[in-house]
Amino acid sequence: MKNIYLIGVGLIGGSFAIDIKKHFSDTIMYGISRKETTLDEALSLNLIDKKATIADLQNADLVIISIPVDATVKLLPTILDNIADHTLVIDAGSTKEAICKVVENHPKRRNFLACHPIAGTENSGPSAAIPNLYVGKTNIICEVEKTTFKLQEKALQLFTAIGMRIRYMDPVAHDKHIAYVSHLSHISSFMLGKTVLEKEKNERDIFDMAGSGFASTVRLAKSSPAMWTPIFKQNKENVIETLEEYIHNLQHFKELMQQENFDEIYNEMENTNYIKQILNGIK
Amino acid sequence: MKNIYLIGVGLIGGSFAIDIKKHFSDTIMYGISRKETTLDEALSLNLIDKKATIADLQNADLVIISIPVDATVKLLPTILDNIADHTLVIDAGSTKEAICKVVENHPKRRNFLACHPIAGTENSGPSAAIPNLYVGKTNIICEVEKTTFKLQEKALQLFTAIGMRIRYMDPVAHDKHIAYVSHLSHISSFMLGKTVLEKEKNERDIFDMAGSGFASTVRLAKSSPAMWTPIFKQNKENVIETLEEYIHNLQHFKELMQQENFDEIYNEMENTNYIKQILNGIK
Repeated sequence: MKNIYLIGVGLIGGSFAIDIKKHFSDTIMYGISRKETTLDEALSLNLIDKKATIADLQNADLVIISIPVDATVKLLPTILDNIADHTLVIDAGSTKEAICKVVENHPKRRNFLACHPIAGTENSGPSAAIPNLYVGKTNIICEVEKTTFKLQEKALQLFTAIGMRIRYMDPVAHDKHIAYVSHLSHISSFMLGKTVLEKEKNERDIFDMAGSGFASTVRLAKSSPAMWTPIFKQNKENVIETLEEYIHNLQHFKELMQQENFDEIYNEMENTNYIKQILNGIK
Repeated sequence: MKNIYLIGVGLIGGSFAIDIKKHFSDTIMYGISRKETTLDEALSLNLIDKKATIADLQNADLVIISIPVDATVKLLPTILDNIADHTLVIDAGSTKEAICKVVENHPKRRNFLACHPIAGTENSGPSAAIPNLYVGKTNIICEVEKTTFKLQEKALQLFTAIGMRIRYMDPVAHDKHIAYVSHLSHISSFMLGKTVLEKEKNERDIFDMAGSGFASTVRLAKSSPAMWTPIFKQNKENVIETLEEYIHNLQHFKELMQQENFDEIYNEMENTNYIKQILNGIK
């Protein structure tokens, strides 16, 4: 896989570039982006070696798409139209159903592997790219059976080389579960940030009182709206369901407070403490 | 301050012990706890040098109380009854109004300094104590004017030595603002943990899908119910108010999703992104 084309050169694409170059030194990394300034930044950070366009994709051994999920749904068919027979195309979107759906009947469907690497930070853009982002992280692959076996193998070699674990999943199940373990966290964090900002807007220095617990809980509220709005849009039904359950649980906690039922509040927390064991498994 | 008595030898008290011993090598650290096994653990971890009881407090130069806030309210008058005239008593509770109130007319009120060090982790007990926990952290001091000037000075020397910044605040204002920047974070985290655990209880391996974002957002759900239940109880009115605003904001977000008003969802997130600048100031 000599010629790799990154469509999107931000945190996700850029971090792939850094680790792939480390393990495959003969790689030539090409960057494609809507914005010329983003490509210039990626060049200056040595994430990419050359600028390119969609029309150049015939030359690609591998195409990595890491742009907002609405842009992926729009662009993926055109990307497949432009590749060669031996080209592998992977994406990195946080939703999988719409992306799999849009290419289900494409003549080059077997060149595409739908992926969701569970990795990232709250930062975005080329300057957010970091080495070893994917080490020990899970890559969820959907509809693996729809990709040519040879290209599956290629992809697995690459993911293994950069230290990823692989899980296979159905796109509908992926979108449902990821709403709980990722999308809801982002909303809870954004709304927590909003609640505190609204209250404290006239008393900015109150934030001196905030400690590492607050920082950890609202960290995701720094995430990119351009990336997250399309995710919520594509996963609307599942996200609304998680929100309803979350609001219900908060409401119940509030009622226990109003009833001064602190024994039950203790139990609520103790039952959830069990999450320790689960979190120990997450890097 | 040679003879220091820790009432409570967990994360907060134990971490004070580690750093005070580092800076004041002639200190003898005494431990007081309801549980003998906790004192044994603190001894074996070298957090304390000797076991003690409330009856020994006449010998104390400094008493540091770091036990759940309901226990502090109950025990503080007795502690003040037992100290010598030169003894300084500080607490570390996450609520301040009830604690200040219970000693307002105590003859030894001027020996007490009400403190809230904004520092901690989600862990608890003697083994959770760590060095440098307080470096660069804020210590909120309430009703400073009610403490003898000489003992204020002693306390400030100590806090400065271990690297803390000081802020002065009224206890009522403290409890109101801390509900937003600390107590609400804990509830949002506990309820997020609960929501995901409920959904995924039969599919434990789904947590393989959870990434660092989820881990960060639910980290506080590992916190001790024994510590947090009394905090919520003492700060009931403020906590209910924050919960109502938080639930309102989540409800509004859900309605925007249902109305497919994704432009407004984008704006909600973009407006909250502003929290980046604030978080940059938090360690």
